[in-house]
Amino acid sequence: MNVLTTIAEIRDAVLAAKNNRQTIGLVPTMGYLHEGHLTLASNARKENDVVIMSIFVNPTQFGPNEDFESYPRDLARDTELAASAGVDYIFAPSVEEIYPQDGGIYIRAGRQAQILCGASRPGHFDGVLQIVAKLFNLVQPDSAYFGQKDAQQVAIIQTLVRDYNFPVELRIIPVVREEDGLAKSSRNVYLSADERCQAPAIQQALQLAKRELIESRNVEKALTLATKIIEDNTDGKIDYFSILSYPDLKEVDEHSGQIVLAAAVYIGKTRLIDNLIFSLKGEVAHV
Amino acid sequence: MNVLTTIAEIRDAVLAAKNNRQTIGLVPTMGYLHEGHLTLASNARKENDVVIMSIFVNPTQFGPNEDFESYPRDLARDTELAASAGVDYIFAPSVEEIYPQDGGIYIRAGRQAQILCGASRPGHFDGVLQIVAKLFNLVQPDSAYFGQKDAQQVAIIQTLVRDYNFPVELRIIPVVREEDGLAKSSRNVYLSADERCQAPAIQQALQLAKRELIESRNVEKALTLATKIIEDNTDGKIDYFSILSYPDLKEVDEHSGQIVLAAAVYIGKTRLIDNLIFSLKGEVAHV
Repeated sequence: MNVLTTIAEIRDAVLAAKNNRQTIGLVPTMGYLHEGHLTLASNARKENDVVIMSIFVNPTQFGPNEDFESYPRDLARDTELAASAGVDYIFAPSVEEIYPQDGGIYIRAGRQAQILCGASRPGHFDGVLQIVAKLFNLVQPDSAYFGQKDAQQVAIIQTLVRDYNFPVELRIIPVVREEDGLAKSSRNVYLSADERCQAPAIQQALQLAKRELIESRNVEKALTLATKIIEDNTDGKIDYFSILSYPDLKEVDEHSGQIVLAAAVYIGKTRLIDNLIFSLKGEVAHV
Repeated sequence: MNVLTTIAEIRDAVLAAKNNRQTIGLVPTMGYLHEGHLTLASNARKENDVVIMSIFVNPTQFGPNEDFESYPRDLARDTELAASAGVDYIFAPSVEEIYPQDGGIYIRAGRQAQILCGASRPGHFDGVLQIVAKLFNLVQPDSAYFGQKDAQQVAIIQTLVRDYNFPVELRIIPVVREEDGLAKSSRNVYLSADERCQAPAIQQALQLAKRELIESRNVEKALTLATKIIEDNTDGKIDYFSILSYPDLKEVDEHSGQIVLAAAVYIGKTRLIDNLIFSLKGEVAHV
């Protein structure tokens, strides 16, 4: 496996793959890899000739009071893990390599970015779109791999690809779960034993809200039910529990095809997110 | 020559070219072709295996009080002219084909778009970047051809390509001129005989300002000289006469590499633009 750090190097690697008619899978990450990233890489490995994982802590998606400086970094460990998952190239550029100058042109995520997790992180998704557009143009992947866990991020990137015709297939990999249904997250270790017992209620609330929605098509009823399950089974505080069309993230109506049920809940001091994406016909939709 | 109107068709044509390892040259236009467009097409023809010309009057770059509806269209005539210039495919989609839905993600041109011609056309260059990004992603050209006559447009597109790493080489084709130096323009027919005699003063002013700038490095002196030439030789009114770094369009300082001298002058009621791009070493720079 090769670790590339410059734009010239990644362009050369991409050109070589294209000249050999090899397909390219891109796994964009901010590093400090966990099981979720490795699941993305394994999927990319199965479906492509060449797998490129980017590792770049992107400053433009952090707010001024967020943790860009202290965000954990461990390239040596990441390199070993990526190699074990079958990654061919790590692209780990410096900030200066990616943003050498600023001509003042920005991509602005709109309405989709002002709700859910975006409500408390102004500018976050603009930064995500900036780095994703750059990576798509640098790597020219046939497929790019993202985790469904970050449903809002995925919805906004799908909208970018759709509305700007990026020639890439997005592969959205389902949430990896513990046996009791809790979505895997590096934050789960912060939970006390008691909190850990309460946390699966988030997934249970999502599942019951989904069933209610499929049966009654009643958004209010489904939300009330989900809220009650969280309240009855946890000491947690709901940040949001939303039912929206997907990927547009608008109010659900009779024209909605796919639906996202998305929750963010504080269990103790730990903020956990989870979601379900499905069509109103009751099947898990292809996203 | 084929006229394609759907995204599926253009994707197929592009895929066929890529599979045959053919290079693609893109000539983006709004149609109603004139000599300038055909010069771009001829250059694309010389340098590429496949030449694709887009003909699309892009609504998002017109202001609410501008002439989107009445902008001239003549696809039959354009098709003949494009064929004679060696174009392989015309891509002439409908507005609905290009903008079927709006997820609210926009590219915003920044500081560069607020001066020169952009000052009086808020949002114009945002719309230009939107359609150019979409065309780059749809056509995936090796090279894309633009006329230097629209220097600000070219500067902003160069910044987009640079800052977002689009894998395309921009080919900026020099201004085509009449024998007396007047930049060719479909608007030149609006000039009266007397105005037509005055109009070459714009190019003379640019040339003398360039010489002054190379000799003295004095921006103020060069601007004063140019203004005097316009005033002494025409009844015209200067809209702007600017000396800026290129492509950033910032104030010129000792670090500036390339320079653009750009003028917009009303000769009678006709607004004419022209420009020179060069490095301060006095040679015409590669743009």
